[in-house]
Amino acid sequence: MEKISIKELYRNSDKYIDSEISICGWIRTLRDSKTFGFIELNDGTFFKNLQIVFDDSLENFKEIAKLPISSSLTVVGKVVATPQAKQPFEIKATTIVVEGLSNSDYPLQKKRHSFEYLRSIAHLRPRSNAFSAVFRVRSVAAYAIHKFFQERGFVYTHTPIITGSDCEGAGEMFQLTTLDLKDVPKTEDGSIDFKEDFFGKETNLTVSGQLNAECFALAFKNVYTFGPTFRAENSNTARHAAEFWMIEPEIAFADLQDDMELAEDMLKYVIKYVMDECPEEMQFFSSFVDKGLLDRLTNVVSSDFGRVTYTEAVELLQKADKKFEYPVSWGSDLQTEHERYLTEEVFKRPVFVTDYPKEIKAFYMRMNDDGKTVAATDCLVPGIGEIIGGSQREERLDVLEKRIEELGLHKEDYWWYLELRKYGGTKHAGFGLGFERLIMYITGMSNIRDVIPFPRTTGTAEF
Amino acid sequence: MEKISIKELYRNSDKYIDSEISICGWIRTLRDSKTFGFIELNDGTFFKNLQIVFDDSLENFKEIAKLPISSSLTVVGKVVATPQAKQPFEIKATTIVVEGLSNSDYPLQKKRHSFEYLRSIAHLRPRSNAFSAVFRVRSVAAYAIHKFFQERGFVYTHTPIITGSDCEGAGEMFQLTTLDLKDVPKTEDGSIDFKEDFFGKETNLTVSGQLNAECFALAFKNVYTFGPTFRAENSNTARHAAEFWMIEPEIAFADLQDDMELAEDMLKYVIKYVMDECPEEMQFFSSFVDKGLLDRLTNVVSSDFGRVTYTEAVELLQKADKKFEYPVSWGSDLQTEHERYLTEEVFKRPVFVTDYPKEIKAFYMRMNDDGKTVAATDCLVPGIGEIIGGSQREERLDVLEKRIEELGLHKEDYWWYLELRKYGGTKHAGFGLGFERLIMYITGMSNIRDVIPFPRTTGTAEF
Repeated sequence: MEKISIKELYRNSDKYIDSEISICGWIRTLRDSKTFGFIELNDGTFFKNLQIVFDDSLENFKEIAKLPISSSLTVVGKVVATPQAKQPFEIKATTIVVEGLSNSDYPLQKKRHSFEYLRSIAHLRPRSNAFSAVFRVRSVAAYAIHKFFQERGFVYTHTPIITGSDCEGAGEMFQLTTLDLKDVPKTEDGSIDFKEDFFGKETNLTVSGQLNAECFALAFKNVYTFGPTFRAENSNTARHAAEFWMIEPEIAFADLQDDMELAEDMLKYVIKYVMDECPEEMQFFSSFVDKGLLDRLTNVVSSDFGRVTYTEAVELLQKADKKFEYPVSWGSDLQTEHERYLTEEVFKRPVFVTDYPKEIKAFYMRMNDDGKTVAATDCLVPGIGEIIGGSQREERLDVLEKRIEELGLHKEDYWWYLELRKYGGTKHAGFGLGFERLIMYITGMSNIRDVIPFPRTTGTAEF
Repeated sequence: MEKISIKELYRNSDKYIDSEISICGWIRTLRDSKTFGFIELNDGTFFKNLQIVFDDSLENFKEIAKLPISSSLTVVGKVVATPQAKQPFEIKATTIVVEGLSNSDYPLQKKRHSFEYLRSIAHLRPRSNAFSAVFRVRSVAAYAIHKFFQERGFVYTHTPIITGSDCEGAGEMFQLTTLDLKDVPKTEDGSIDFKEDFFGKETNLTVSGQLNAECFALAFKNVYTFGPTFRAENSNTARHAAEFWMIEPEIAFADLQDDMELAEDMLKYVIKYVMDECPEEMQFFSSFVDKGLLDRLTNVVSSDFGRVTYTEAVELLQKADKKFEYPVSWGSDLQTEHERYLTEEVFKRPVFVTDYPKEIKAFYMRMNDDGKTVAATDCLVPGIGEIIGGSQREERLDVLEKRIEELGLHKEDYWWYLELRKYGGTKHAGFGLGFERLIMYITGMSNIRDVIPFPRTTGTAEF
């Protein structure tokens, strides 16, 4: 008798009809009458439940009939086709063993719970339909990212989480220390004596692996990172978390056009992979979380992304027959309302905005010939706005050094980054994709706290 | 004319012989005479170089002939079969464009450098043969881990990096803060006022995702983590890093036997995958880094791992005709010398040691019926000793609570972990594999600093 998963049974049911199998799982619902009962069993391998029918021929019928929801079972029984019923087959149980009894105060009773409430029981919420779907999709999407890059020969690079300096200046950082906070050692001039700290210097949690990834791109040509990054920003919004995962590919012998092609191919690949592998979950999201979801994603997968320069985009927005909360003028950053207008109303598909003013972009982005804009791009998608930010990197040592000086940064801090330009540097480019933003986009979930297993946000580091 | 990678050319050379192609890469060596020259070009996609032949029919022949090592090029030319030569084919260049000129003081000249020296130029060392091989293997092994678990339906779970408490007690932790270290806020009683810190409480970097992974295993049945973990231990050895990546699968409805089977299958799968995908790199390691490597790995892949209890292992060691530095007695932890003796001399293959005394293992491991040992296992492999540590988890609420009390831990800190046992807990198990240890094992590299892109160890957080 074979031990199988519910997923295996659903995916290859023909193989199992009329045979005896063994299945483990947790009770989602249980209905009983005097002589028989039905259990909806879920084993976590599949979105759908499996119906178990049992009757008083079981020795422990009375015990089973009274089990609390979420008790865990091993069920042995025959797979029976039920073409007339809602579900295509069910199990006629011959033995049911209780593996673990649940308690009657189980917090996830059948009634619908708010996402807010479920966040307070993050250790149990993956047992609900919505979160079981979210976290299965998160796993499949993560794998799709690896698969996409590995199939193209990219080298997966674990860039460091602990950094010795805030080189990118991308955001507020968490400081890391083993010093005794009650009695921080000081030097004679009153400043903190970091020599006594673990690394002998001030250290922080990374905000981006890009600068390190560039080192590897200039050795392996095509690399990507996929790891956690951190922002200590006090922004209590539905879109910001203090800890989130980022994907940062970096490609050598490549310019901004190559970068955009890669980003477009990757987004389409991952979305399509999830739609193919998780049809039940995606159907659930499209029915219960975000009605337009599947149409929107199908549109993304099948359309050619648009391209527009920042300068053209600003003109389009200024001419728009729409009142924006924030004014638009050349030189200021686009707000989400502007981004959504461009992708949803002007282009009606994803669009890359390129060549932003240098003042609103980072020091390492490649200066365009106009001296005013840089070879940067943001990818905007309907329903969300910016999902990817990328650029061609400045490979000209003199230009890069000048930019660093202009911005009041210190060349010494970047000695190794500058050496990449000195020893056979070449044009290269890359982008960053916030993994949680992608999962929100794919699932339609609107709060970042609901796509992270155990979210860390301002004031919250539970579990 | 096709733009291709050197890997593509080597793997499918038949397709390209006599056609014109375009290749980008960096000069590894260059020899020139008056009218012609040879370049060994490497593009980072493949371990081997590609030989480029050029002559004075090139307009820029003189420039090319004098290029410093590591300059980056785009070469257009014809692929010519060279059956008599060392390499199976070469490129007869028709155009060579210099993408980036290197400097003559390039630190990676052809002479052999020590690994110690190369650590000081971690931004450039992936351009050397050894590190190009190490980091390509690291990437392929990481993918093999994902592939192994995803093909078996495991859910990849991103457990948190920032933790609110030291629940596992697995080691010294790094503290995380946004407080001003120069002026740490204190409460009236003189203790630190963590209410003013980012999360409103004391937070640290995780030492293990296991407790969180258990939550997900009790929803999804089979899950795994793969992410960075941290130890603030002041141990300056070749085997310890402050930041390293761990793989922690967790399986429900499974006991210690299932756990060991999974660990054995996973190790064999990953090693075999790397040997299949990276034959050139593995040949290099076996020739230049660790002579017995391929034999040892082949033995691991093809043998059934041994099984022995801790108690039997202690007897074997006490009877051994060998002098150990550390004495062996029931109740004390096995040292690496003991572990290596067991796997290398007694079993001559990998071996699982099981059922350790409870005193030397963690609180969450399942108590055996003898009341003295727990259902734990360490997997020992020849050449290294312990590579995996795992256990069946204590699923009995009362037993677990008693253990927590015995060890002086606080039940309140584990409320959510204990609830997993209250609401349909079931037997479950898991293990931890240090990814760097695995890479050291697969490559034969003997210092953990040489398998991490930018290592973080006591006193060192450069780049």
